[in-house]
Amino acid sequence: MAKLKRLFNDPYDVVDEMIEGYAKAHKQYVHMDESEEAQGRVLVSNEVGKKDKVGIVVGGGTGHEPMFLGYVGKDFADAVVMGNINTSPSPDPCYAAARAVDTGKGVVYLYGNYAGDVMNFDMGAEEAEDEDDIVVKSVTVKDDVVSAPKDRIEDRRGVAGDFIVFKAAGAAAAMGKDLDEVVRIAEKANSVTRSMGVAMSSSTIPAKGGTIFEMEDGDMEIGMGIHGEPGVRRGKIDTADNVVDEIMDPILSDLPFEKGDEVYVLVNSLGATPLMDLHVCFRRVQQILDEKGITVYKTLVGPFATSMDMAGMSITLTKLDDELKEMLDYPCDTPYFTQV
Amino acid sequence: MAKLKRLFNDPYDVVDEMIEGYAKAHKQYVHMDESEEAQGRVLVSNEVGKKDKVGIVVGGGTGHEPMFLGYVGKDFADAVVMGNINTSPSPDPCYAAARAVDTGKGVVYLYGNYAGDVMNFDMGAEEAEDEDDIVVKSVTVKDDVVSAPKDRIEDRRGVAGDFIVFKAAGAAAAMGKDLDEVVRIAEKANSVTRSMGVAMSSSTIPAKGGTIFEMEDGDMEIGMGIHGEPGVRRGKIDTADNVVDEIMDPILSDLPFEKGDEVYVLVNSLGATPLMDLHVCFRRVQQILDEKGITVYKTLVGPFATSMDMAGMSITLTKLDDELKEMLDYPCDTPYFTQV
Repeated sequence: MAKLKRLFNDPYDVVDEMIEGYAKAHKQYVHMDESEEAQGRVLVSNEVGKKDKVGIVVGGGTGHEPMFLGYVGKDFADAVVMGNINTSPSPDPCYAAARAVDTGKGVVYLYGNYAGDVMNFDMGAEEAEDEDDIVVKSVTVKDDVVSAPKDRIEDRRGVAGDFIVFKAAGAAAAMGKDLDEVVRIAEKANSVTRSMGVAMSSSTIPAKGGTIFEMEDGDMEIGMGIHGEPGVRRGKIDTADNVVDEIMDPILSDLPFEKGDEVYVLVNSLGATPLMDLHVCFRRVQQILDEKGITVYKTLVGPFATSMDMAGMSITLTKLDDELKEMLDYPCDTPYFTQV
Repeated sequence: MAKLKRLFNDPYDVVDEMIEGYAKAHKQYVHMDESEEAQGRVLVSNEVGKKDKVGIVVGGGTGHEPMFLGYVGKDFADAVVMGNINTSPSPDPCYAAARAVDTGKGVVYLYGNYAGDVMNFDMGAEEAEDEDDIVVKSVTVKDDVVSAPKDRIEDRRGVAGDFIVFKAAGAAAAMGKDLDEVVRIAEKANSVTRSMGVAMSSSTIPAKGGTIFEMEDGDMEIGMGIHGEPGVRRGKIDTADNVVDEIMDPILSDLPFEKGDEVYVLVNSLGATPLMDLHVCFRRVQQILDEKGITVYKTLVGPFATSMDMAGMSITLTKLDDELKEMLDYPCDTPYFTQV
């Protein structure tokens, strides 16, 4: 097994040391929730309390940075709850996050659709309702087309599409919409967002001292999930254009995206894949969409939802209407996504 | 030799395809300079021409994305000139970039201090002066403390400190300062900025089909440059805290940074090193600065000046005064750095 090319101290402290470093590096934006229930796993926006609004709590396992903590700040997410690497947070920190952001208008939990997260966030929501009468609703993101067939969309996982759904919800809350409206808009973004990826290496886990799965040097796996969940095909790494073609096809046919549609595009690095390669990939995405008569409204290219140092990338498309454009264009200011 | 885990088509087209993809992905911000002299290697901000100001041209070899092209937009850089991977751009595109951004107030070329870049940008400047009477001045960034001893600062290379110097110059130009003032402020930022890095793997070059240098699996090289230039010591990968200690010492003693100073900190990924590790590293940077009585004003953590998929990171410190704070805080909006 190849040796880790990572920088950490005690491997069992890596998440806590990351959070400590993050809170200090981005002190203009966030602070730690120091309550006992938060267990050192909740970061709260410094904006909380400046206006009454629906609270936006995001979270999940760590190892996907800048997802989830990077999007806590002004007019996006209000708090993040973090578990260990690839592991759901516990119920108590979920509860603490809801308590930290509630201004009486209710709270939305937004996270990728994984069984562990659903269980823990649901228990956190119950706690918030029982202890403090906070109304909590949940939206689970399900953008990964490979993770379940279309007739079982409720079983699909959340990947980079998390970003799109969180952003839409964050904007809706920032605009002062009520809890039901924020949930409606998040679910709408969720329903028109589709993603698929390719991995060319495994991520590495400090506490394991190695990779989470084995992959032959020079191989790729089309459709692999961000925790190494199985994809649709393993083979030799192909050209960027061929890889993009193979990924775009299932994305486009799933919703489906059709001639005349307008889309938001996110080309995401899973970690080690550089911006150079992502832009070569986007070039092909644009060609395909041009051929199909689908208009690109805006594009983001970069590391949004990673798997630490995994080599690979994913493509996310969101079908837009005027309301979603307004949400995705809404200004926000966080350490890893600022728009004016 | 390990196989490439990269996504590209013809390896000799990777830079041009990246630029084509970039221009399309970020069409809200930039467009291609279509002139013959630009040779398809110049991207120009869509803001150019909206106000008369000193033109800011940045550039150098590609493979360091988001450096340099990512910082072209509003109130930062006005154009970028790009060479092949790790290779200076030619004189004609340097000239074309100056011509594209000049509004009669002169142009500053800003780039890392490498012999090839100096030669080509100087020839571009001559061309701009001879052909179009454009006054061009140059600032070469020299933040890498390892690259030459302190009594030969003029021989030092530019690394992630490029970002700081460009940002200061971009703000000065956006504020309407004249050419001499923009150059003075850029040189001031340059004179108080120091960087050093560590590499844990080589970057890979598509056209070479492999790494640019050999590195034993599990080794690191303290002080290595962003093109693989030799550092000060090779050894086994150590803990994050030990690595940061070994890097911070030469940075701090070089300027020197002293008790009572206020600093801007940039913890930069060389590519594959994830945000998790960078924040663990920043945690130690903060501890060291606290111990020394040096105040952290602001911190940036992420991939700013990379070497494609190289594993490694660098630390940059800039000693601040009120003027530099104003420049670094000045709002700007580009695809890879937006601040409000």
